[in-house]
Amino acid sequence: MPAPLPSELAYIRFVSVENMMKLVHSIGIETMLKDLARYIEDDFRRWEDFDKTPRVASHSAEGVIELMPTSDGEDYGFKYVNGHPSNTKVGLQTVTAFGLLARVDTGYPELLCEMTLLTALRTAATSAMVARHLAPKQARTMALIGNGAQSEFQALAMRAIVGIDTLRMYDIDPAATRKAVGNLEGQGFTLVPCDTPEEAVEGAQIITTCTADKQYATILTDNLVGDGQHINAIGGDCPGKTELHRDILNRADVFVEYPPQTRVEGEIQQMPEDFEVTEMWQVISGTAPGRVNDRQITLFDGVGFAIEDFSALRYLRDKLSEHPFYQELDIIADPDDPRDLFGMLQRAAPD
Amino acid sequence: MPAPLPSELAYIRFVSVENMMKLVHSIGIETMLKDLARYIEDDFRRWEDFDKTPRVASHSAEGVIELMPTSDGEDYGFKYVNGHPSNTKVGLQTVTAFGLLARVDTGYPELLCEMTLLTALRTAATSAMVARHLAPKQARTMALIGNGAQSEFQALAMRAIVGIDTLRMYDIDPAATRKAVGNLEGQGFTLVPCDTPEEAVEGAQIITTCTADKQYATILTDNLVGDGQHINAIGGDCPGKTELHRDILNRADVFVEYPPQTRVEGEIQQMPEDFEVTEMWQVISGTAPGRVNDRQITLFDGVGFAIEDFSALRYLRDKLSEHPFYQELDIIADPDDPRDLFGMLQRAAPD
Repeated sequence: MPAPLPSELAYIRFVSVENMMKLVHSIGIETMLKDLARYIEDDFRRWEDFDKTPRVASHSAEGVIELMPTSDGEDYGFKYVNGHPSNTKVGLQTVTAFGLLARVDTGYPELLCEMTLLTALRTAATSAMVARHLAPKQARTMALIGNGAQSEFQALAMRAIVGIDTLRMYDIDPAATRKAVGNLEGQGFTLVPCDTPEEAVEGAQIITTCTADKQYATILTDNLVGDGQHINAIGGDCPGKTELHRDILNRADVFVEYPPQTRVEGEIQQMPEDFEVTEMWQVISGTAPGRVNDRQITLFDGVGFAIEDFSALRYLRDKLSEHPFYQELDIIADPDDPRDLFGMLQRAAPD
Repeated sequence: MPAPLPSELAYIRFVSVENMMKLVHSIGIETMLKDLARYIEDDFRRWEDFDKTPRVASHSAEGVIELMPTSDGEDYGFKYVNGHPSNTKVGLQTVTAFGLLARVDTGYPELLCEMTLLTALRTAATSAMVARHLAPKQARTMALIGNGAQSEFQALAMRAIVGIDTLRMYDIDPAATRKAVGNLEGQGFTLVPCDTPEEAVEGAQIITTCTADKQYATILTDNLVGDGQHINAIGGDCPGKTELHRDILNRADVFVEYPPQTRVEGEIQQMPEDFEVTEMWQVISGTAPGRVNDRQITLFDGVGFAIEDFSALRYLRDKLSEHPFYQELDIIADPDDPRDLFGMLQRAAPD
C-alpha cells in the first residue's frame, strides 16, 4: 500500500527565485514597488507594535551569517542573510537571503521564499518611501552614484513613488554604468551617464549613493552637496563600510530606521554615540518633523531593517492568492494522532 | 524565448516529511539511531569548537517560536521550532520544526529539512548515547514512563545502542500505552504494560521519563528509585515543566548537556543556581568521571541542545548521496554577473 499523502496541514508555500521573477512581472515591477512602499510605510507607522529582536550574527574569517527575526504579535518573520565579500572571486553572490513567515498563534510556518530579489525590491521601496517624505517636492532629477545590483531598483522605485524622470549616473567602473544604462534604456527615463561624481550631482534634487565599496570610502564630499538636496545613502550598511564624508553628516539632518543598528552599521558609525538622528517611523507617524524648509539637507542613512523584510513577506503572502507563483512543500509533520509520530513514520514503512 | 534555467548554484536540497520517512526506512531506523548517536558523540567530544549562541525566543500568549543556531566554524546550522500547547485542541501539533545547514566559508545554504521526525530521532539517539556511558553495564530492562510521541524512538534507540530488550511501560493514559505497545510489538521486545509507575520500575536498570505533562509534576518519587539505576529524564524540557521529585536530584549524580540552558529548562530548574552538575561532553572527552560505582544513581537531565540538531543535519547531508530522498529548490539568486540582479530578473520578463 502506498503511503497516504499528508493532509494539507503539512504544507507551506514556497516561492523560488524563478517564481519570484515571474511574480514580479505578473504584478508589474513599478506596481510592486509602490505596493511594497505602502506595506513598509504601514508597518513604520505602527513601529511600536513590533518585537524588535536584535539580529543574531555568526561571524567567521570569511563573512557573517545573520538571522533577523521580528514579530507584530500576529505574524512572525525572519530573514536568513549572509555577507561574504570574497564570494565573487569564486563566482558566488556576496549576499544571499531567504525568508520565512509564520503565524504567532500556532507557531506554524506558512511561507518560505527567496529573499535576494525581494530584499532588492524592499530596499528600493524603502528609499523611495522615505524620499517621498523628505525630498524636495517636484524632485525630478536623481544622481545615481554606484551603478551595481541595487541601482536599477532604486531608479524604478524613485520614479514610481517620487516622480523622478532623469538619472545622472556615475560609477567608478564605467562598465557598471553601461550595464545599468542598458537595463534602464527604452523605459522612458532621461539617462545621463557621467564621468565624475561632480557631474552626476549637477541639478539633482536627490543624490542616491549605492556603491559596493567594502572599505571606508568617501564617495561623496561636502562640497558636492547643495542646500535643499535629499541624500539617500544606501551603501554604508555594515561596520567598516561608509560612503559619505563626515562633514556632510554634520551639515545634514539625518534620518534613520533603528538607531541601535544604524549607529553600528550606517554612515553615522563615523560619528559619536550621541550624534542626533531622527527615527523615520516618527516622521511617518507625525511625531517628529521631516523636511522643514527648502534649504535643509536631509539624509536617509539606510541600512535595512528586519521590519522592512517583514512587510515584504506580508505583502508576498497577500499577493499569492491572486498571483499563484509558488510550490507547496510538506515540511510539517502531521500524524493522525499527535502522540503517534512513530505511527506516522510507519506510513512509509516497506511492506 | 523561455527564461533560461538557473545554474546549479541556485539550488539547495530539501528533505520533506515524506522524504524523511522514506529515508529513515531506506537506512533502517535502528541503523540511523546508531549513526546519529555516533555523530552526536563526535560533536560532544569537540564541544569547545562550537559557537554556542543562545537560542532566540519570541514569546506570545499562545506559545514560543525559537531559532537555535550553532556553528563549528565549517558548517552553520539552525533549527526553527515552535511550542504551542493549545495547538492540539485545534488538531495541530504542539511542536513543529525545520532545520537548515549552510557553509560557513561562503554563507550559502545547502540543506533544508523537516525536523519534527529528525528531532525525535536525535533526542532518542542522544538519550541512548548518554545511557551507554552512564547506565549499568548489562542493562537489559527499561521502565518507559510516558508512552507518547517520543516513547517508541527511545525504546528502539536504547535497544540499538545499549542492548535493552525488555520494556516495562506505563502512562497515566492507558490508551497511550496501548498505542506504544501496538507500534512496538512483533519487533522482538518483551513488552510489559504496567498499571503503576511502581510496577514499571521493578527490576529496571534504566528508567526513562518522557511524559507530556505541561506543569510541574511528580512522575517519579524518590522511593521508586533504587541504587545503581540510571534515570533518563527527557520530559522536563521547558520552564515550568518537570517530572522528578527534587529528592531524586539530591540523591543522584546529575549529568546535563549545557548548564546555562538546563538550569532554565530542565529538572534542575527546581534546584539552586549552584546545584552541582557534570557536563556530558566532559564525560565523553574523558575529562570528568561518568559512572564510578554500581550503587551510584546517575541521572541525565536532557533538554535537547542545538549541537544535537547540528549533528543530525550533518548526518542527513552525508547520507543524501547514498539515499537520495530530496528535492531541489532554487532559493539562491544566481545572476550571470553579480552586479546584474536586475538583468537576472529580466530573464523572466514577458516578450
